[in-house]
Amino acid sequence: MTLKIGVIGTGMIGRDHTRRIQQVLAGAEVVALSDYTPEAARAVQADLAPGATVYERGEDLIAAADVDAVLVCSTGSTHEAYVLAAIAAGKPCFCEKPLATTAEGARRIVDAEVAGGKRLVQVGFMRRYDAGYVALKQAVETRTGAPIMVHAAHRNPTVPEQYVTPMAIHDTFVHEIDVFRWLLGDDYVSARVTFPRTCAASHAKLRDPQIVTLTTARGVVITTEIYVNCQYGYDIQCEVVGEEGIARLPEPMAIQMRLNASLQTAILTDWKDRFVASYDTELQDFIKAASAGTATGPTSWDGYMAAVTCDACVAAQESEGTAIAITNPERPALYA
Amino acid sequence: MTLKIGVIGTGMIGRDHTRRIQQVLAGAEVVALSDYTPEAARAVQADLAPGATVYERGEDLIAAADVDAVLVCSTGSTHEAYVLAAIAAGKPCFCEKPLATTAEGARRIVDAEVAGGKRLVQVGFMRRYDAGYVALKQAVETRTGAPIMVHAAHRNPTVPEQYVTPMAIHDTFVHEIDVFRWLLGDDYVSARVTFPRTCAASHAKLRDPQIVTLTTARGVVITTEIYVNCQYGYDIQCEVVGEEGIARLPEPMAIQMRLNASLQTAILTDWKDRFVASYDTELQDFIKAASAGTATGPTSWDGYMAAVTCDACVAAQESEGTAIAITNPERPALYA
Amino acid sequence: MTLKIGVIGTGMIGRDHTRRIQQVLAGAEVVALSDYTPEAARAVQADLAPGATVYERGEDLIAAADVDAVLVCSTGSTHEAYVLAAIAAGKPCFCEKPLATTAEGARRIVDAEVAGGKRLVQVGFMRRYDAGYVALKQAVETRTGAPIMVHAAHRNPTVPEQYVTPMAIHDTFVHEIDVFRWLLGDDYVSARVTFPRTCAASHAKLRDPQIVTLTTARGVVITTEIYVNCQYGYDIQCEVVGEEGIARLPEPMAIQMRLNASLQTAILTDWKDRFVASYDTELQDFIKAASAGTATGPTSWDGYMAAVTCDACVAAQESEGTAIAITNPERPALYA
Amino acid sequence: MTLKIGVIGTGMIGRDHTRRIQQVLAGAEVVALSDYTPEAARAVQADLAPGATVYERGEDLIAAADVDAVLVCSTGSTHEAYVLAAIAAGKPCFCEKPLATTAEGARRIVDAEVAGGKRLVQVGFMRRYDAGYVALKQAVETRTGAPIMVHAAHRNPTVPEQYVTPMAIHDTFVHEIDVFRWLLGDDYVSARVTFPRTCAASHAKLRDPQIVTLTTARGVVITTEIYVNCQYGYDIQCEVVGEEGIARLPEPMAIQMRLNASLQTAILTDWKDRFVASYDTELQDFIKAASAGTATGPTSWDGYMAAVTCDACVAAQESEGTAIAITNPERPALYA
Ligand SMILES: [Mg+2]
Ligand SMILES: [Mg+2]
Ligand SMILES: [Mg+2]
Ligand SMILES: [Mg+2]
Repeated sequence: MTLKIGVIGTGMIGRDHTRRIQQVLAGAEVVALSDYTPEAARAVQADLAPGATVYERGEDLIAAADVDAVLVCSTGSTHEAYVLAAIAAGKPCFCEKPLATTAEGARRIVDAEVAGGKRLVQVGFMRRYDAGYVALKQAVETRTGAPIMVHAAHRNPTVPEQYVTPMAIHDTFVHEIDVFRWLLGDDYVSARVTFPRTCAASHAKLRDPQIVTLTTARGVVITTEIYVNCQYGYDIQCEVVGEEGIARLPEPMAIQMRLNASLQTAILTDWKDRFVASYDTELQDFIKAASAGTATGPTSWDGYMAAVTCDACVAAQESEGTAIAITNPERPALYA
Repeated sequence: MTLKIGVIGTGMIGRDHTRRIQQVLAGAEVVALSDYTPEAARAVQADLAPGATVYERGEDLIAAADVDAVLVCSTGSTHEAYVLAAIAAGKPCFCEKPLATTAEGARRIVDAEVAGGKRLVQVGFMRRYDAGYVALKQAVETRTGAPIMVHAAHRNPTVPEQYVTPMAIHDTFVHEIDVFRWLLGDDYVSARVTFPRTCAASHAKLRDPQIVTLTTARGVVITTEIYVNCQYGYDIQCEVVGEEGIARLPEPMAIQMRLNASLQTAILTDWKDRFVASYDTELQDFIKAASAGTATGPTSWDGYMAAVTCDACVAAQESEGTAIAITNPERPALYA
Repeated sequence: MTLKIGVIGTGMIGRDHTRRIQQVLAGAEVVALSDYTPEAARAVQADLAPGATVYERGEDLIAAADVDAVLVCSTGSTHEAYVLAAIAAGKPCFCEKPLATTAEGARRIVDAEVAGGKRLVQVGFMRRYDAGYVALKQAVETRTGAPIMVHAAHRNPTVPEQYVTPMAIHDTFVHEIDVFRWLLGDDYVSARVTFPRTCAASHAKLRDPQIVTLTTARGVVITTEIYVNCQYGYDIQCEVVGEEGIARLPEPMAIQMRLNASLQTAILTDWKDRFVASYDTELQDFIKAASAGTATGPTSWDGYMAAVTCDACVAAQESEGTAIAITNPERPALYA
Repeated sequence: MTLKIGVIGTGMIGRDHTRRIQQVLAGAEVVALSDYTPEAARAVQADLAPGATVYERGEDLIAAADVDAVLVCSTGSTHEAYVLAAIAAGKPCFCEKPLATTAEGARRIVDAEVAGGKRLVQVGFMRRYDAGYVALKQAVETRTGAPIMVHAAHRNPTVPEQYVTPMAIHDTFVHEIDVFRWLLGDDYVSARVTFPRTCAASHAKLRDPQIVTLTTARGVVITTEIYVNCQYGYDIQCEVVGEEGIARLPEPMAIQMRLNASLQTAILTDWKDRFVASYDTELQDFIKAASAGTATGPTSWDGYMAAVTCDACVAAQESEGTAIAITNPERPALYA
């Protein structure tokens, strides 16, 4: 009855998911761990899962007879191979983003899953599990009338020095790319990027902020401000404008203070606090589906479409002001 | 066609009303000035009303043939005599609060005005002209259902050393006393005061904060927090709870800022900024009515009832926790 | 390693806690069920815990060798006996409110637990686990300065016909009684009740709304509006006024809508939705402590003090306007 | 001492300005009226300014010896000639927007005013006098750090059938064009228009909504949603994103209601209510400057730059997705 999970990659997110399974969620336990650095896996074993077996190779963990399902939390470049191995083994697999480092790699996963004939992969797009986005989607479907525009912002207080312009797409905007496809039930047909002057806090290899304009197949226009040196906080904004009205993503829960001539609520500064509850929910959802031998939630197709869209957005960065077309391949019936 | 106004008392408020009449409002001009310190009157004359005559005695100003209407802005103890003189002269008179320093004095004004048979006096309860309170009254009359409770707060950042406990009634709470009578269209029947522990910022002669509970003839219970050392700002709160819903006084207009990990709007710190627009409106209303030889707005009766209620509240402070009854004399037909 | 729990009482809350343990929380399973109506226990067994044993008598469930810890979710009048039996058996026990139907009964539980020398009982005051109240407590302890006043409201849209005046204390206000003691770290010394006119939606045996004023040992004054026919929603408000500033409980998360000439967010209407997440948290906390053979969270002493305060508030209802003193017995060292 | 004003055009806005001068503002009176339909001028005379002279021709009103200053409130196509006549007569002139119906016409006014060597013209861009925008400008100059982006929206519930696509620029967006130039103290260098799918409530000749992207000389990017069939209300939004933080235009003052399971404030539906106070302020400012023989506030140059920018935006509508360059002629010293 208890789902036996193997975790590949025991860095920050792999450790955190292990803690979640062992101490927070119902219905699963971690029975196997693996990491490029075996000592890291052993440390997580010691701290959180003393009954788990540590494997040197992820492939062996996937093959282990007592492993029912796999979490892929290793470095991005290894995702594709592990996910393909899990599909080959017929085991449900939760894969942290990115599903693969290239659109072609993600497509190979899609093709393998389709060939197998059933869903086995859930991609770690946790925002779809955030209570705010879930409520926003319901509001868009029942109260605003059909959507026409989305105004969004993704702001970080600062980023490290190695963060360069294309990472604003692959590491930051990718969350909006997935969540808006899901929110609108629509696909993208073009992307355009506009750069205002670069903020003083940025550096030579990062044009920040930028505004990405996506257009969907149904004609919805989505403008998103990406500003990763905004200084004041980690702030995710989203407003959907429909035929009848407008719905806006809630601010995170905060105490309202009257203090020092100011009526104020705190804004988060650490991205890890923003969607913390949605990690629990996405993984509980995975446990439930995997216990039945399948997967729900964000699909390989979603991971592939995110990769395709990211590529178009980076091309749009490189030809500022030009609309880059996004081609949508035919969606396999498995993801209908 | 232009109303000719004489201003008695040229301190802060008298000077400000003179500026208002000369530079902001339509339909009036200041033709006469008077002050206990004649140089003060002459300074206002020089700065704002070069055409005005300066009188040594307020009585002479009231009697002057070219004075159509009078503003009484002198020190509180002189109000009663000047207002009675204006009534005797048949001239419309705007009197800053208090109408008189005792309930008996206010009653004498009521009796004189009633004897004259027409309204001539407007008391300077400016909150009735505040756009927020006006909208609140409309909401209470049309949307909340009949009122049952009011929760209010009157907070100052600090008060000067000479501010002692009864002044919390006479100088501070008197504004709520008047505006809630008007808001509810009701009269008070009892007052009770509760003192929490005194805040650290207060002093030996001031018990601060305090909670005053007023009950009305229709059974509405009004609880008001008076807190004049609240530190954080000048803040006026009012929420009316009715049979169907609740209406709340708006916060003053302020820019919403995202700054330093905080979503914030400014709170005022100076009481003079809070109802600044309502001074314009109350005086324009006086000018309009006085031009027709009468007065509208807050009446002598309102000033008298405020004085009666203040006396009950001070008695309630002195017998903490006890409900003090408030007797409502019969209302003369002039104020029906 | 997995805590084995027996659930006594399988009505709405007992069933819900069973679901929570089986499907949501980590580290526990339900191995035993009991109910006054055995079919009810068997239905929960069938739906949620097929491996559990059904007992006819709660006492037998408590005594069962494989039961590590007990949840008392039966009707209130049976709580005292079951909790005493769990203490006698040395088993951790989570008891839904009320701990007992009388202050004397609650005192007997306190005495038994103290005699045993260690904490075994957690009372189901779930608000202490609500993320909003937790954040409010932190704000009061770190940002507002020492508290002086609390303004609160507890509003239900409607109540059933059998809900009569004292139930506003025992069933409704009891939540504020406990959570404010915890929030302030203080004890009550008096209670007073003020009744405005009764709202039109009420009935002959229910004076609604009412305002309860509690005073604490440190001189904090707490005014709470209880209004159980407010029509518009289920609404819990709490504002703490301190030496330096004010902190306010957040509104529940809601989508901001612009629709039909109105900027709006939804207000809940069902009390079951308001603190839903805190039930998970309180029970996870119980599982963690019980796995170590003890209890944390709200104590028997808290349950006893709530009962004592409820009695004073009902007496205050019966002598409207009079302050009823609340005597605080010496607190046993176990609850220091 | 009283400024004598002649009003040309006594339609809705001319009548309203006449009322304002006669009944609300200090320091001026209407002594002359003129309208294409003389009966309209006579009706305003009868209702509001019995002492005024009615002229058949605006040119005669401008020439009248007792007219100190002129208000041009007639139909747009007549503005240029009247303003040029007022400049020729050396009389201060307040001109409702548009200053002229073409950029060339506006340029002729600029040239005439420059040739005269002193400011005489104020254009009726009233938003600059709105308390919200004034506070926003102050926040941008003192608190947000240098601006980088502006996100704005201009929404009407509906528009009449004759409102076609270019009117979204000339009649609607022109307000943002002027107010953002003033807010940022910057000039535009390009305009681009993006059209989402057209909303169901629109008609064949109106592509609605649309998003206009303006770029300034300093590299600020301004995205404005124009949506004139938004159904829910008249709603003006503006958020300025700077180096350090974000400032947002306040919502109009409104009572907060708790009603029908909704926490709500009213949104305006009639554009005439949104900036009503700023009409008073702009005209008081004109009276003050005109009394000194000159003009302040929005200049002829501002009117000209608005016309130039409107032309670029309409060109951008016609070549959707293409950035249209905006050339800024050298600014005459008179407008430095
Ligand atoms: Mg994830
Ligand atoms: Mg006043
Ligand atoms: Mg509970
Ligand atoms: Mg205008």
